[in-house]
Amino acid sequence: MVFDIEGEVNLNNFFKPKTIVVIGVSRNPNKVGHVIFKNILDGNFNGEVIPVNPKISQILHFKVYPSVSRIKKHIDLAIIAVPAKLVLNIVKQCNKKNIKDLLIISSGFGEVGNTILEQQLKELLNKNKIRAIGVNCLGILDSHNSLDTLFIPRYRLKRPSPGSISFVCQSGAVGAAILDIATEQGHKFSKFISYGNATNIDESDLLEYLSKDENTKVICLYVEGIKNGEKFYKTIKKVSKIKPIIALKGGLTKEGSEATISHTGALAGKKEVYFGIFKQAGVIRASTLEEMFNLASLVEKEIKFCGNRIQIITNGGGYGIISTDNISTSKNIKLASLSSTTVKKLKKLLPSVNIRNPLDLMGDATTDRYRIALESCIKDKNIDAILLIALYQTPLITTDIVEVISEFHRETLKPIIVISTGAEFTENLSESLEENNIPTFEFPENAISSIDKLMWYENKKRII
Amino acid sequence: MVFDIEGEVNLNNFFKPKTIVVIGVSRNPNKVGHVIFKNILDGNFNGEVIPVNPKISQILHFKVYPSVSRIKKHIDLAIIAVPAKLVLNIVKQCNKKNIKDLLIISSGFGEVGNTILEQQLKELLNKNKIRAIGVNCLGILDSHNSLDTLFIPRYRLKRPSPGSISFVCQSGAVGAAILDIATEQGHKFSKFISYGNATNIDESDLLEYLSKDENTKVICLYVEGIKNGEKFYKTIKKVSKIKPIIALKGGLTKEGSEATISHTGALAGKKEVYFGIFKQAGVIRASTLEEMFNLASLVEKEIKFCGNRIQIITNGGGYGIISTDNISTSKNIKLASLSSTTVKKLKKLLPSVNIRNPLDLMGDATTDRYRIALESCIKDKNIDAILLIALYQTPLITTDIVEVISEFHRETLKPIIVISTGAEFTENLSESLEENNIPTFEFPENAISSIDKLMWYENKKRII
Repeated sequence: MVFDIEGEVNLNNFFKPKTIVVIGVSRNPNKVGHVIFKNILDGNFNGEVIPVNPKISQILHFKVYPSVSRIKKHIDLAIIAVPAKLVLNIVKQCNKKNIKDLLIISSGFGEVGNTILEQQLKELLNKNKIRAIGVNCLGILDSHNSLDTLFIPRYRLKRPSPGSISFVCQSGAVGAAILDIATEQGHKFSKFISYGNATNIDESDLLEYLSKDENTKVICLYVEGIKNGEKFYKTIKKVSKIKPIIALKGGLTKEGSEATISHTGALAGKKEVYFGIFKQAGVIRASTLEEMFNLASLVEKEIKFCGNRIQIITNGGGYGIISTDNISTSKNIKLASLSSTTVKKLKKLLPSVNIRNPLDLMGDATTDRYRIALESCIKDKNIDAILLIALYQTPLITTDIVEVISEFHRETLKPIIVISTGAEFTENLSESLEENNIPTFEFPENAISSIDKLMWYENKKRII
Repeated sequence: MVFDIEGEVNLNNFFKPKTIVVIGVSRNPNKVGHVIFKNILDGNFNGEVIPVNPKISQILHFKVYPSVSRIKKHIDLAIIAVPAKLVLNIVKQCNKKNIKDLLIISSGFGEVGNTILEQQLKELLNKNKIRAIGVNCLGILDSHNSLDTLFIPRYRLKRPSPGSISFVCQSGAVGAAILDIATEQGHKFSKFISYGNATNIDESDLLEYLSKDENTKVICLYVEGIKNGEKFYKTIKKVSKIKPIIALKGGLTKEGSEATISHTGALAGKKEVYFGIFKQAGVIRASTLEEMFNLASLVEKEIKFCGNRIQIITNGGGYGIISTDNISTSKNIKLASLSSTTVKKLKKLLPSVNIRNPLDLMGDATTDRYRIALESCIKDKNIDAILLIALYQTPLITTDIVEVISEFHRETLKPIIVISTGAEFTENLSESLEENNIPTFEFPENAISSIDKLMWYENKKRII
């Protein structure tokens, strides 16, 4: 990869370009080049985008240039969506025109056994100090700069609002599917980067760049194979100290690893090795795709734990018990013990409630009971965070519980994480809480596992 | 508990009553007695329901009786929703009127330390051979008989369509929340039974009854404490041979177990003991609330595995790899090896595809590629089930893939389980598949863990 003079990766032309060319546009609306060109326009890109294809003269009322050499102005970024066999030639043309940043969408290289062609491309890029993301990738997206180069139509893949999660994803299809569902679930993104075969720019370069991106608070990483392990380890160790990396590794087993070769041309490596370096470097390891964004949502909402003692407040006894089981068997968090002052006060204010942890406000809990419990628990110095279970099925909880929780949330730094399970009525209330920046989960097990892992990271960061 | 002459539990009066009384109705629409009475009416109960309360004369245009003794006709089921201290007296009145089936909603017994009152009630019930579900419960629901006695308003808790899952749940709040979300996710139910403190009828009686209920194909069980362990073990061992029981145990840890005492008055017992008896008896153990219904959905759709060799078909390489990792590390399933005939045929028909397991049809996969792959894999005797990953974000998959998959599903007994991740566009296609009785999952990890556990059950059933 190409470092600039200071030895740092400068990828600004990828995310903040003023002028883009799309090489390989097509009049066929199903073709990759067409979709990319259209999405850049539909995404309200605030720079200029110029289509290139020697075979056509117009697309969507834009003049099409036969080649980059015929364009007079300076170009920051070229997006290449032509068949693999034409890529070398196009890259040479770009280099002649002094375009040093390329997003190469084209597939048909190492991942289908065409390793010689990929090696030739790699050398061409290195020799000419060209930075390239790809090959065999889905594109990039920057919500803050309204840049959308993905080759998937917007009706099939929802685009996220500007936010603080950046998602670096080796697999295009994993990236697309996860971006789509995460957006649906309300997660907000800074950047999405599909980087495919990592022919030139690799995951380490991207992580390095994102560590300095002020719009990025948390980095999600799906990675299959790492070619330069030493560079990767150094990078994740460095970046983890600045912001959390949540990583999922594909190809952990012998069988899975074999499958990666024909996917992104990478050899995946041993499970134990990866788990080891993730742990040492302070990378949070997601066990599942779903967990990756459960974890990210806590960071997105700037949840910071000052300690690991959790108090459960619930109106569902069973949920309290399941949560107790899960916290008791977790590695990094534990049940808080209410201070004697709190116990005394709550015994008086909530005489029908058994004052303990879990604090079961019972099936007939009112919003007011929650208010009383929350107030005392927030003041209690024996408690570092509150797991608040609110099952809205029971009629005595009124919908203004959303305001009650939100107000406490505004007034305290103590994390309040809310768990509610249910259909529309519940979903609407959870959405309101999310809008007020309070993390919500559908199931206690997911919430606790995410809190546990984030707590591990906070502890690790203090040590490393 | 009360067995009838043949030594079997007859709970027909609970689920198929012709005449019900609701004792403790109220004119206040927020009170339990009111909500229950209204829900029975709104649920289109096809028998007669009679309100009882000495203090009021009319509710919702119905004449209210001061006590059961004043009702002349025979009553099958009495629902009791009065304060705890009045319950003994009400039970005596019911007994005098020869009502032998009671659903006691009232709380305020063992769960709040009132063990003496609960003991007195227990003895009264036993002495008079009365069958009672409760105390401290949420009620029961039978979708096939339009019987809805839950004390939660319908706008807060969605009611399920008639189906084949029965859910036995010791905790009312867990039951309500899970029923709500499971219904939202499209699961269909036969019976839902919240049984609270199990003062008289316990989980074993309910399981025994459901094992003979022809509307029930699969039983989900959330249980906290078991009072009669020997009876429970004998029952689950017997019932598991007839239909699958999927169980989640609350109070597995010391801390969780302590919390159960103040919830349903039960002592929870050791984790190892429960895991051991579940395993021996062939009960499928759900690790999380979410997993319980993932598992149930496979049984609901009558998925039967004849063997454990799974073929992955995907258009997302990364999903194929993650699935491969998960299958390789699972306990009861394994990756299928395509027969040489299939390999030969597919190599010819899909020249650009690497013919292996996972079968990665690649990002530019068309619906036709899926058709070709499915056809060959269904014919291949080396394959027992197909994990079909369809990521609909890529434009070349057309929406008629739903018909293609559905048609194969109709023609074969080989299970096809579909995984798709995404927002509305994806959700709509998954819903169409579900309507055609094809199980769909959002994430590969959940699907594989459910298949793995169901496979364990199928194997176990063959042995025990």
